[in-house]
Amino acid sequence: MAHQEKATSGVEWRITLGDGSSKSLVPDAGPISRIWIGLKGLIAGLVLKVWKFLMRAWDIGVDDPRKVIHCLKVGMALTVVSLFYFMRPLYKGVGGNAMWAIMTVVVVFENTVGATICKSLNRVFGTTLAGFLAFGVHWVASQSGQEFEPLITGASVFLLASTATFSRFIPSVKARFDYGAMIFILTFSLVTVSGYRVDKLFDMAHQRISTIIIGTSLCILVTMFICPIWAGEELHILISRNMDKLANSLDGCVDEHFNYNGELKDSDKQPDKKLLGYKCVLSSKATEESMAKFARWEPAHGRFNFKHPWQQYLKIGASMRSCAYCVEALNRCIDSENQAPEFTKKHLSNICLKVSSNSSSVIKEVAKTIKTMKRSPSIDFLVEEMRSAVQDLQNELNFLPKLLSPPEVLHPESKETEETTSTTHLLELIPVVTFASLMIEISSRIQAIVEMVEELAELAEFKGEAQEKAKQNQPNTNRIVASQLNDDQQTMKALERV
Amino acid sequence: MAHQEKATSGVEWRITLGDGSSKSLVPDAGPISRIWIGLKGLIAGLVLKVWKFLMRAWDIGVDDPRKVIHCLKVGMALTVVSLFYFMRPLYKGVGGNAMWAIMTVVVVFENTVGATICKSLNRVFGTTLAGFLAFGVHWVASQSGQEFEPLITGASVFLLASTATFSRFIPSVKARFDYGAMIFILTFSLVTVSGYRVDKLFDMAHQRISTIIIGTSLCILVTMFICPIWAGEELHILISRNMDKLANSLDGCVDEHFNYNGELKDSDKQPDKKLLGYKCVLSSKATEESMAKFARWEPAHGRFNFKHPWQQYLKIGASMRSCAYCVEALNRCIDSENQAPEFTKKHLSNICLKVSSNSSSVIKEVAKTIKTMKRSPSIDFLVEEMRSAVQDLQNELNFLPKLLSPPEVLHPESKETEETTSTTHLLELIPVVTFASLMIEISSRIQAIVEMVEELAELAEFKGEAQEKAKQNQPNTNRIVASQLNDDQQTMKALERV
Repeated sequence: MAHQEKATSGVEWRITLGDGSSKSLVPDAGPISRIWIGLKGLIAGLVLKVWKFLMRAWDIGVDDPRKVIHCLKVGMALTVVSLFYFMRPLYKGVGGNAMWAIMTVVVVFENTVGATICKSLNRVFGTTLAGFLAFGVHWVASQSGQEFEPLITGASVFLLASTATFSRFIPSVKARFDYGAMIFILTFSLVTVSGYRVDKLFDMAHQRISTIIIGTSLCILVTMFICPIWAGEELHILISRNMDKLANSLDGCVDEHFNYNGELKDSDKQPDKKLLGYKCVLSSKATEESMAKFARWEPAHGRFNFKHPWQQYLKIGASMRSCAYCVEALNRCIDSENQAPEFTKKHLSNICLKVSSNSSSVIKEVAKTIKTMKRSPSIDFLVEEMRSAVQDLQNELNFLPKLLSPPEVLHPESKETEETTSTTHLLELIPVVTFASLMIEISSRIQAIVEMVEELAELAEFKGEAQEKAKQNQPNTNRIVASQLNDDQQTMKALERV
Repeated sequence: MAHQEKATSGVEWRITLGDGSSKSLVPDAGPISRIWIGLKGLIAGLVLKVWKFLMRAWDIGVDDPRKVIHCLKVGMALTVVSLFYFMRPLYKGVGGNAMWAIMTVVVVFENTVGATICKSLNRVFGTTLAGFLAFGVHWVASQSGQEFEPLITGASVFLLASTATFSRFIPSVKARFDYGAMIFILTFSLVTVSGYRVDKLFDMAHQRISTIIIGTSLCILVTMFICPIWAGEELHILISRNMDKLANSLDGCVDEHFNYNGELKDSDKQPDKKLLGYKCVLSSKATEESMAKFARWEPAHGRFNFKHPWQQYLKIGASMRSCAYCVEALNRCIDSENQAPEFTKKHLSNICLKVSSNSSSVIKEVAKTIKTMKRSPSIDFLVEEMRSAVQDLQNELNFLPKLLSPPEVLHPESKETEETTSTTHLLELIPVVTFASLMIEISSRIQAIVEMVEELAELAEFKGEAQEKAKQNQPNTNRIVASQLNDDQQTMKALERV
């Protein structure tokens, strides 16, 4: 009975080892080994996850090494600022307030120069202003006696913190002084409230402000002089790169519609990625705005003056987005279920390809104008060519109805009456007409982009190619004139000696 | 001579006063008075600017009183935390570290509950983790002798700060722990470096963490219990409000195209504002994303569970934007130069208006579904109606070519041959065909929105109207059953007594 019970209670597991002996696996060890296996699985999963995470981080670093450089810059700035603690003479100078320098570096150091300068100035001015105000309040409070002191201090903290917080909701303040307002609240509360306890208030405030200035100057120096990333330049590059993407995706879209329709869909995904470039344009609004916000804090750098018209880039971005909306609609035409019949597509393919290649070359030329910051001599010609291609497209559309009237040669299978043929085919024409009218709309939006870029060229005083060439010639003539002058001077000297 | 000189040097200005006497204005006062006038102008301009700024601020406050409430909440939280300084027993407890509580409140207090909780948890965990790590590093450094201590400390600061900064570039970390990483760097640097000087390191760290916890708890309590603004609820409202805007602007757009074209353009700007509602949809991507980011930190509130599918709202937002792109293209059709001839517009106006009104009622119904969080019983019916309207529109487009074959009745002025008429008119048809095909595309994108919302209803377990009614009836039956049970128990008790 007992034996039978044992047999039913557990199935015996046996494992045959390499030397021929067999070993029974004790069923009691089951749960423990199961836990062990589970634990191993868990750990393996965790290791895999961490590994994947690290691989992704590695990819990010390889994609944009400047991010890695930024991290090293932060590390460096922090280590330098730590010297205040390690070096006794420096430590004696600022004392425990050295921690404010460390704090400043951590909080203020940003990826781009503009953002760092913006935060630095906000921090310095916010702290200074709040410090002075807090002194005033503290003085008034201390004059009004022991009883009223906490009352006045508390009320002033409440009032000023509320007001400053509210100011952060006002768009013009938020755009420039958001961080400054926060620092204002922070410093004001700290100084006013500590004023109640700390005796050497003035010394403290003075040391704090000077350490903050040390921290911010260090940050600004490091961001500006070690592999600087300028917000303005980034914006400049972003806009021109997005233009290229837009041009490529317009080209790719029209190509796919007319040439490789269906062929490339499964086999080769490469053109798809190119095709979706317009999505970058659609999604980069926030980036553009923050870059433009920071760019105006930056000093003159590279090819950009201090008063470079960064706001104009936002307008260009908006006009590019408005063009990208149309490209998106065009892209949907490819996926749309009711495709146009082959013969109409063939009829329009050449002219559509011409419009798209002209349009994209206009965009690329404009992108080049921005990239090189030189006025293009050929842009007017290209725009005119695009316009004439659009005109041709409209003319071709005029001829479509002729294709509809019984064209036995083109599709001999249609034997119906004229009316039905034409009725059926107008419906079939809808996709191709939509496609064409979107192309026309896109070309008109491209003209808006061109106008915006011309405005930028005006505002930023881009040089024309012709001007540029004249300048390149100028130094030679100058040199000739100079050498002539030199000769003259030497002759004069020779004459004097005589 | 002298008199003459005086006469030429200055023109004498005289002013006749009220009592008849005249007074000469001394010419010497000229520059001073001019400066004075300039100064007055400057001051007046400044006052006007400040006044305008204040008026704008007032408008912002009136538009959204919750912003004012938020400011008062910040002021209150700061005043409460200042009590640590004012009250001697509390001050003795935490000492000078009370400033960390103030700092925490200033930095952590955000507009929405989710953002506050996110920042609070990030701050607490970042500080704790960094504190422990810094202790470890400090211990290792202190064991390795006077010479190596600054070296080890400096190297660890450099390494960890760089790594943590890099982690902020990784999207998954950035989305949730961006602030935590910054606080980690801050605390680690401060503790490691101060460890070199401050003796009672453990006490300091302990007090600092406890004051931070006090600050964050205060913030969380105040945001959650005094007029809370939930990021999740905001997102929910934003999405449903944007849907209504999209529906209105679709309706308005089609109305303007067919009915009031040109009439309302100059006289009445009211419908224009409604018309541009789709722009809100296009521009609210960043807001939606940040709201969804913060919403998942929020506990269950109101009608939302802890695991409410906030990510699904982003998908709905994306599908709405894809629909808004088309509305934008539709809107351009109104402004487009080559308008369709009146007779084709009249031919299509009824059916287009029907499609648009059906489409917008589908969007509005879906918006209602989200608003009430109840499945709509009529949505399938409405979608079906929209589909059939689209089918009708396609049929109507079929009949367009018939209008093109010499319709003497409709426009008797065309006396050309059939071919030219049809050629001319197909080109004229392009705008109306584009408009119609955009309408068809919009309706297909609306179906995508409906699918997304149905997915949301599935995930968030929205109740059906029918279910709801059944539930409303349920309590009555329950009550009847309960009262029956009650009766039975009373009968039993009565029997027991017997």
